[in-house]
Amino acid sequence: MFIATSLDGYIADKNGGIDWLHAIPNPENNDMGYSAFTAQIDALVMGRNTFETVCGFDIEWPYQKPVFVLSNSLKEIPEKFKDHAVLIKGPLKDVLEKIHSLGHHRLYIDGGTTIQNFLKEDLIDEMIITIIPTLLGGGTPLFTELPNSLNFECIDTKIYLDQVVQNHFKRKHNL
Amino acid sequence: MFIATSLDGYIADKNGGIDWLHAIPNPENNDMGYSAFTAQIDALVMGRNTFETVCGFDIEWPYQKPVFVLSNSLKEIPEKFKDHAVLIKGPLKDVLEKIHSLGHHRLYIDGGTTIQNFLKEDLIDEMIITIIPTLLGGGTPLFTELPNSLNFECIDTKIYLDQVVQNHFKRKHNL
Repeated sequence: MFIATSLDGYIADKNGGIDWLHAIPNPENNDMGYSAFTAQIDALVMGRNTFETVCGFDIEWPYQKPVFVLSNSLKEIPEKFKDHAVLIKGPLKDVLEKIHSLGHHRLYIDGGTTIQNFLKEDLIDEMIITIIPTLLGGGTPLFTELPNSLNFECIDTKIYLDQVVQNHFKRKHNL
Repeated sequence: MFIATSLDGYIADKNGGIDWLHAIPNPENNDMGYSAFTAQIDALVMGRNTFETVCGFDIEWPYQKPVFVLSNSLKEIPEKFKDHAVLIKGPLKDVLEKIHSLGHHRLYIDGGTTIQNFLKEDLIDEMIITIIPTLLGGGTPLFTELPNSLNFECIDTKIYLDQVVQNHFKRKHNL
Protein backbone atom coordinates (compact mmCIF):
# COMPACT_ATOMS: atom_id res chain seq x y z
CA MET A 1 0.00 0.00 0.00
CA PHE A 2 0.97 3.60 -0.61
CA ILE A 3 -1.03 6.05 1.46
CA ALA A 4 -0.86 9.43 3.16
CA THR A 5 -1.86 10.05 6.74
CA SER A 6 -1.80 13.02 9.06
CA LEU A 7 0.82 13.12 11.81
CA ASP A 8 -1.81 11.67 14.15
CA GLY A 9 -2.61 8.82 11.76
CA TYR A 10 -5.81 9.94 10.07
CA ILE A 11 -6.67 9.44 6.39
CA ALA A 12 -9.59 11.89 6.51
CA ASP A 13 -10.31 14.78 8.86
CA LYS A 14 -13.21 15.17 11.32
CA ASN A 15 -15.54 16.09 8.44
CA GLY A 16 -14.30 13.35 6.13
CA GLY A 17 -12.29 15.94 4.18
CA ILE A 18 -8.88 15.51 2.60
CA ASP A 19 -8.00 19.12 1.77
CA TRP A 20 -5.14 18.99 4.30
CA LEU A 21 -3.46 16.44 2.00
CA HIS A 22 -2.88 19.19 -0.52
CA ALA A 23 -2.29 22.14 1.79
CA ILE A 24 1.49 22.04 1.51
CA PRO A 25 2.82 24.09 -1.42
CA ASN A 26 4.03 21.76 -4.16
CA PRO A 27 4.89 24.08 -7.06
CA GLU A 28 6.64 21.40 -9.11
CA ASN A 29 3.98 18.77 -8.48
CA ASN A 30 6.38 16.40 -6.79
CA ASP A 31 4.50 13.09 -6.73
CA MET A 32 6.53 11.85 -3.74
CA GLY A 33 7.38 8.56 -5.35
CA TYR A 34 3.86 7.68 -6.48
CA SER A 35 4.62 7.03 -10.15
CA ALA A 36 7.79 5.08 -9.30
CA PHE A 37 5.68 2.98 -6.95
CA THR A 38 2.83 2.37 -9.39
CA ALA A 39 5.32 1.47 -12.14
CA GLN A 40 6.32 -1.53 -10.01
CA ILE A 41 2.89 -2.94 -9.30
CA ASP A 42 0.90 -5.40 -11.37
CA ALA A 43 -2.60 -4.36 -10.35
CA LEU A 44 -4.67 -2.37 -7.86
CA VAL A 45 -7.15 -3.74 -5.39
CA MET A 46 -9.54 -1.21 -3.90
CA GLY A 47 -12.76 -1.15 -1.98
CA ARG A 48 -16.07 0.14 -3.23
CA ASN A 49 -15.72 3.48 -1.42
CA THR A 50 -12.42 4.29 -3.08
CA PHE A 51 -13.69 3.08 -6.45
CA GLU A 52 -16.80 5.28 -6.25
CA THR A 53 -14.68 8.25 -5.17
CA VAL A 54 -12.41 7.77 -8.18
CA CYS A 55 -15.43 7.37 -10.51
CA GLY A 56 -16.67 10.72 -9.24
CA PHE A 57 -13.48 12.58 -10.12
CA ASP A 58 -13.90 14.92 -13.04
CA ILE A 59 -10.76 13.60 -14.71
CA GLU A 60 -9.76 10.76 -17.01
CA TRP A 61 -9.43 7.31 -15.50
CA PRO A 62 -6.20 7.69 -13.52
CA TYR A 63 -4.83 4.14 -13.49
CA GLN A 64 -2.70 2.39 -16.09
CA LYS A 65 -2.84 -0.99 -14.35
CA PRO A 66 -5.75 -3.41 -13.94
CA VAL A 67 -8.09 -2.44 -11.11
CA PHE A 68 -9.98 -4.96 -9.00
CA VAL A 69 -12.88 -3.59 -6.98
CA LEU A 70 -13.70 -5.54 -3.87
CA SER A 71 -17.34 -5.40 -2.98
CA ASN A 72 -19.95 -7.79 -1.72
CA SER A 73 -22.74 -5.23 -2.19
CA LEU A 74 -22.02 -3.79 -5.65
CA LYS A 75 -23.90 -5.78 -8.34
CA GLU A 76 -21.75 -4.73 -11.26
CA ILE A 77 -19.23 -2.14 -12.42
CA PRO A 78 -21.11 0.80 -14.02
CA GLU A 79 -21.07 0.64 -17.83
CA LYS A 80 -18.82 3.70 -18.16
CA PHE A 81 -16.03 2.04 -16.16
CA LYS A 82 -16.29 -1.55 -17.43
CA ASP A 83 -13.10 -1.19 -19.48
CA HIS A 84 -11.25 -0.01 -16.39
CA ALA A 85 -12.26 -2.15 -13.46
CA VAL A 86 -13.30 -5.67 -12.57
CA LEU A 87 -15.63 -6.51 -9.69
CA ILE A 88 -14.41 -9.21 -7.34
CA LYS A 89 -16.14 -10.77 -4.32
CA GLY A 90 -15.59 -13.29 -1.59
CA PRO A 91 -13.11 -14.01 1.19
CA LEU A 92 -9.85 -12.10 0.79
CA LYS A 93 -7.70 -15.20 0.50
CA ASP A 94 -9.83 -16.46 -2.41
CA VAL A 95 -9.77 -13.00 -3.99
CA LEU A 96 -5.99 -12.94 -3.82
CA GLU A 97 -5.72 -16.44 -5.22
CA LYS A 98 -7.90 -15.41 -8.15
CA ILE A 99 -5.87 -12.24 -8.83
CA HIS A 100 -2.57 -14.11 -8.52
CA SER A 101 -3.85 -16.75 -10.98
CA LEU A 102 -4.29 -13.94 -13.49
CA GLY A 103 -0.57 -13.21 -13.19
CA HIS A 104 -0.84 -10.19 -10.88
CA HIS A 105 1.42 -10.58 -7.88
CA ARG A 106 2.52 -7.12 -6.78
CA LEU A 107 -0.76 -5.60 -5.70
CA TYR A 108 -1.44 -2.06 -4.57
CA ILE A 109 -4.07 -2.32 -1.84
CA ASP A 110 -5.96 0.96 -1.55
CA GLY A 111 -8.71 2.41 0.61
CA GLY A 112 -9.01 2.64 4.38
CA THR A 113 -11.46 -0.20 4.99
CA THR A 114 -9.80 -2.47 2.45
CA ILE A 115 -6.37 -1.93 4.03
CA GLN A 116 -7.81 -2.65 7.47
CA ASN A 117 -9.43 -5.86 6.23
CA PHE A 118 -6.19 -7.01 4.61
CA LEU A 119 -4.22 -6.21 7.78
CA LYS A 120 -6.67 -8.16 9.92
CA GLU A 121 -5.70 -11.24 7.89
CA ASP A 122 -2.02 -10.31 7.75
CA LEU A 123 -2.09 -9.93 3.97
CA ILE A 124 -0.03 -6.73 3.63
CA ASP A 125 3.70 -7.08 2.87
CA GLU A 126 4.72 -3.47 2.38
CA MET A 127 3.42 -0.08 3.47
CA ILE A 128 4.69 3.22 2.16
CA ILE A 129 3.21 5.82 4.47
CA THR A 130 3.57 9.50 3.69
CA ILE A 131 3.07 11.60 6.80
CA ILE A 132 1.56 15.02 6.17
CA PRO A 133 2.92 16.73 9.31
CA THR A 134 -0.37 18.10 10.61
CA LEU A 135 -2.11 17.03 13.80
CA LEU A 136 -5.75 16.96 12.71
CA GLY A 137 -6.98 16.16 16.21
CA GLY A 138 -9.60 13.71 14.98
CA GLY A 139 -10.90 11.94 11.88
CA THR A 140 -10.83 8.54 10.21
CA PRO A 141 -7.81 6.54 11.37
CA LEU A 142 -5.72 4.48 8.96
CA PHE A 143 -5.11 1.79 11.54
CA THR A 144 -7.79 0.20 13.68
CA GLU A 145 -8.12 -2.83 15.94
CA LEU A 146 -6.21 -5.94 14.97
CA PRO A 147 -6.54 -9.41 16.44
CA ASN A 148 -2.74 -9.86 16.56
CA SER A 149 0.25 -7.55 16.52
CA LEU A 150 2.29 -7.54 13.30
CA ASN A 151 5.98 -6.71 13.05
CA PHE A 152 7.37 -4.63 10.23
CA GLU A 153 10.73 -2.98 9.63
CA CYS A 154 11.37 0.46 8.23
CA ILE A 155 13.58 -0.04 5.17
CA ASP A 156 13.63 3.52 3.84
CA THR A 157 12.71 7.05 4.84
CA LYS A 158 12.67 10.27 2.83
CA ILE A 159 11.71 13.88 3.33
CA TYR A 160 9.75 15.59 0.53
CA LEU A 161 8.99 19.29 0.09
CA ASP A 162 11.21 20.01 3.13
CA GLN A 163 8.49 18.89 5.53
CA VAL A 164 6.68 15.71 4.53
CA VAL A 165 8.21 12.40 5.63
CA GLN A 166 7.65 9.10 3.87
CA ASN A 167 8.46 5.88 5.70
CA HIS A 168 8.64 2.56 3.88
CA PHE A 169 7.80 -0.47 6.02
CA LYS A 170 8.15 -4.15 5.14
CA ARG A 171 6.52 -7.06 6.95
CA LYS A 172 8.95 -9.03 9.04
CA HIS A 173 8.15 -12.53 10.20
CA ASN A 174 10.89 -12.81 12.82
CA LEU A 175 12.42 -10.26 15.12
CA MET B 1 9.14 15.80 23.42
CA PHE B 2 11.01 12.62 22.63
CA ILE B 3 8.83 9.55 22.60
CA ALA B 4 8.41 6.14 21.04
CA THR B 5 5.18 4.87 19.53
CA SER B 6 4.12 1.75 17.71
CA LEU B 7 3.53 1.96 13.96
CA ASP B 8 -0.16 2.46 14.73
CA GLY B 9 0.56 5.31 17.15
CA TYR B 10 0.28 3.66 20.55
CA ILE B 11 2.50 4.34 23.56
CA ALA B 12 1.29 1.28 25.47
CA ASP B 13 -0.28 -1.95 24.23
CA LYS B 14 -3.79 -3.30 24.92
CA ASN B 15 -2.70 -4.42 28.40
CA GLY B 16 -0.83 -1.21 29.20
CA GLY B 17 2.47 -2.98 28.53
CA ILE B 18 5.59 -1.58 26.90
CA ASP B 19 7.61 -4.77 26.34
CA TRP B 20 7.28 -4.26 22.57
CA LEU B 21 9.45 -1.13 22.97
CA HIS B 22 12.39 -3.35 23.76
CA ALA B 23 11.62 -6.33 21.54
CA ILE B 24 14.04 -5.31 18.79
CA PRO B 25 17.56 -6.63 19.33
CA ASN B 26 19.84 -3.78 20.36
CA PRO B 27 23.15 -5.48 21.21
CA GLU B 28 25.13 -2.25 21.44
CA ASN B 29 22.47 -0.42 23.44
CA ASN B 30 22.01 2.24 20.79
CA ASP B 31 20.07 5.00 22.58
CA MET B 32 18.65 6.33 19.30
CA GLY B 33 19.62 9.91 20.02
CA TYR B 34 18.22 10.05 23.56
CA SER B 35 21.36 11.27 25.33
CA ALA B 36 22.11 13.80 22.57
CA PHE B 37 18.55 15.06 22.98
CA THR B 38 18.63 15.27 26.77
CA ALA B 39 22.02 17.03 26.65
CA GLN B 40 20.23 19.91 24.90
CA ILE B 41 17.34 20.37 27.29
CA ASP B 42 17.20 22.52 30.42
CA ALA B 43 14.61 20.57 32.38
CA LEU B 44 11.94 17.86 32.21
CA VAL B 45 8.25 18.31 32.77
CA MET B 46 6.29 15.14 33.39
CA GLY B 47 2.92 14.10 34.71
CA ARG B 48 2.28 12.22 37.91
CA ASN B 49 1.87 8.86 36.10
CA THR B 50 5.27 9.06 34.48
CA PHE B 51 6.86 10.30 37.71
CA GLU B 52 5.42 7.44 39.73
CA THR B 53 6.52 4.95 37.07
CA VAL B 54 10.07 6.31 37.24
CA CYS B 55 10.01 6.24 41.06
CA GLY B 56 9.09 2.56 40.86
CA PHE B 57 12.09 1.64 38.71
CA ASP B 58 14.65 -0.39 40.56
CA ILE B 59 17.48 1.83 39.32
CA GLU B 60 19.17 5.06 40.33
CA TRP B 61 17.38 8.29 39.52
CA PRO B 62 17.82 8.45 35.73
CA TYR B 63 17.75 12.21 35.07
CA GLN B 64 20.61 14.71 35.23
CA LYS B 65 18.37 17.72 34.64
CA PRO B 66 15.77 19.31 36.93
CA VAL B 67 12.44 17.50 36.88
CA PHE B 68 9.11 19.24 37.33
CA VAL B 69 6.17 17.00 38.18
CA LEU B 70 2.80 18.33 37.11
CA SER B 71 0.03 17.23 39.39
CA ASN B 72 -3.03 18.75 40.91
CA SER B 73 -3.68 15.68 43.07
CA LEU B 74 -0.25 14.86 44.48
CA LYS B 75 0.28 16.65 47.83
CA GLU B 76 4.05 16.48 47.86
CA ILE B 77 7.03 14.72 46.31
CA PRO B 78 7.85 11.62 48.40
CA GLU B 79 10.81 12.22 50.78
CA LYS B 80 13.09 9.85 48.87
CA PHE B 81 12.77 11.88 45.67
CA LYS B 82 12.79 15.42 47.08
CA ASP B 83 16.31 16.07 45.83
CA HIS B 84 15.29 15.03 42.34
CA ALA B 85 11.93 16.51 41.56
CA VAL B 86 9.76 19.56 42.21
CA LEU B 87 5.97 19.47 42.32
CA ILE B 88 4.22 22.10 40.25
CA LYS B 89 0.50 22.85 39.89
CA GLY B 90 -1.89 25.09 38.07
CA PRO B 91 -2.78 26.06 34.51
CA LEU B 92 -0.11 25.02 32.01
CA LYS B 93 0.64 28.55 30.89
CA ASP B 94 1.35 29.60 34.50
CA VAL B 95 3.43 26.47 35.01
CA LEU B 96 5.52 27.28 31.95
CA GLU B 97 5.96 30.90 33.03
CA LYS B 98 7.19 29.71 36.40
CA ILE B 99 9.66 27.22 34.88
CA HIS B 100 10.90 29.77 32.36
CA SER B 101 11.44 32.29 35.17
CA LEU B 102 13.80 29.76 36.75
CA GLY B 103 15.91 29.89 33.59
CA HIS B 104 14.67 26.67 32.01
CA HIS B 105 13.59 27.24 28.44
CA ARG B 106 14.19 24.02 26.51
CA LEU B 107 11.78 21.67 28.21
CA TYR B 108 11.33 17.97 27.62
CA ILE B 109 7.63 17.27 28.03
CA ASP B 110 7.08 13.62 28.90
CA GLY B 111 4.14 11.32 29.54
CA GLY B 112 1.10 10.59 27.40
CA THR B 113 -1.49 12.67 29.25
CA THR B 114 0.91 15.56 29.80
CA ILE B 115 1.82 15.65 26.11
CA GLN B 116 -1.86 15.63 25.19
CA ASN B 117 -2.60 18.48 27.58
CA PHE B 118 0.27 20.55 26.19
CA LEU B 119 -0.85 19.87 22.61
CA LYS B 120 -4.42 20.94 23.41
CA GLU B 121 -3.00 24.36 24.27
CA ASP B 122 -0.51 24.35 21.37
CA LEU B 123 2.47 24.40 23.73
CA ILE B 124 4.69 21.85 21.97
CA ASP B 125 7.39 23.16 19.59
CA GLU B 126 9.21 19.98 18.69
CA MET B 127 8.41 16.29 18.63
CA ILE B 128 10.95 13.54 18.07
CA ILE B 129 8.92 10.42 17.48
CA THR B 130 10.59 7.04 17.26
CA ILE B 131 8.38 4.54 15.48
CA ILE B 132 8.80 0.95 16.64
CA PRO B 133 7.55 -0.74 13.46
CA THR B 134 4.95 -2.99 15.04
CA LEU B 135 1.21 -2.75 14.55
CA LEU B 136 -0.09 -3.40 18.05
CA GLY B 137 -3.71 -3.32 16.93
CA GLY B 138 -4.87 -1.44 20.02
CA GLY B 139 -3.64 0.31 23.15
CA THR B 140 -3.10 3.80 24.53
CA PRO B 141 -2.72 6.31 21.69
CA LEU B 142 -0.11 9.08 21.80
CA PHE B 143 -2.41 11.53 20.04
CA THR B 144 -6.01 12.16 20.98
CA GLU B 145 -8.67 14.76 20.19
CA LEU B 146 -7.53 18.32 19.65
CA PRO B 147 -9.68 21.41 19.40
CA ASN B 148 -7.66 22.72 16.42
CA SER B 149 -5.35 21.23 13.87
CA LEU B 150 -1.66 22.06 14.28
CA ASN B 151 0.89 22.17 11.47
CA PHE B 152 4.40 20.82 11.90
CA GLU B 153 7.20 20.09 9.46
CA CYS B 154 9.49 17.09 9.43
CA ILE B 155 13.04 18.43 9.66
CA ASP B 156 14.95 15.17 10.04
CA THR B 157 14.46 11.44 9.73
CA LYS B 158 16.76 8.56 10.63
CA ILE B 159 16.66 4.78 10.64
CA TYR B 160 18.07 3.00 13.71
CA LEU B 161 18.86 -0.70 14.14
CA ASP B 162 17.96 -1.23 10.45
CA GLN B 163 14.24 -1.06 11.22
CA VAL B 164 13.21 1.70 13.60
CA VAL B 165 12.47 5.13 12.11
CA GLN B 166 12.74 8.38 14.02
CA ASN B 167 11.03 11.46 12.64
CA HIS B 168 11.77 14.92 14.01
CA PHE B 169 8.90 17.40 13.70
CA LYS B 170 8.92 21.11 14.39
CA ARG B 171 5.86 23.33 14.88
CA LYS B 172 5.20 25.57 11.93
CA HIS B 173 3.00 28.60 12.22
CA ASN B 174 2.48 29.23 8.53
CA LEU B 175 2.19 26.87 5.60
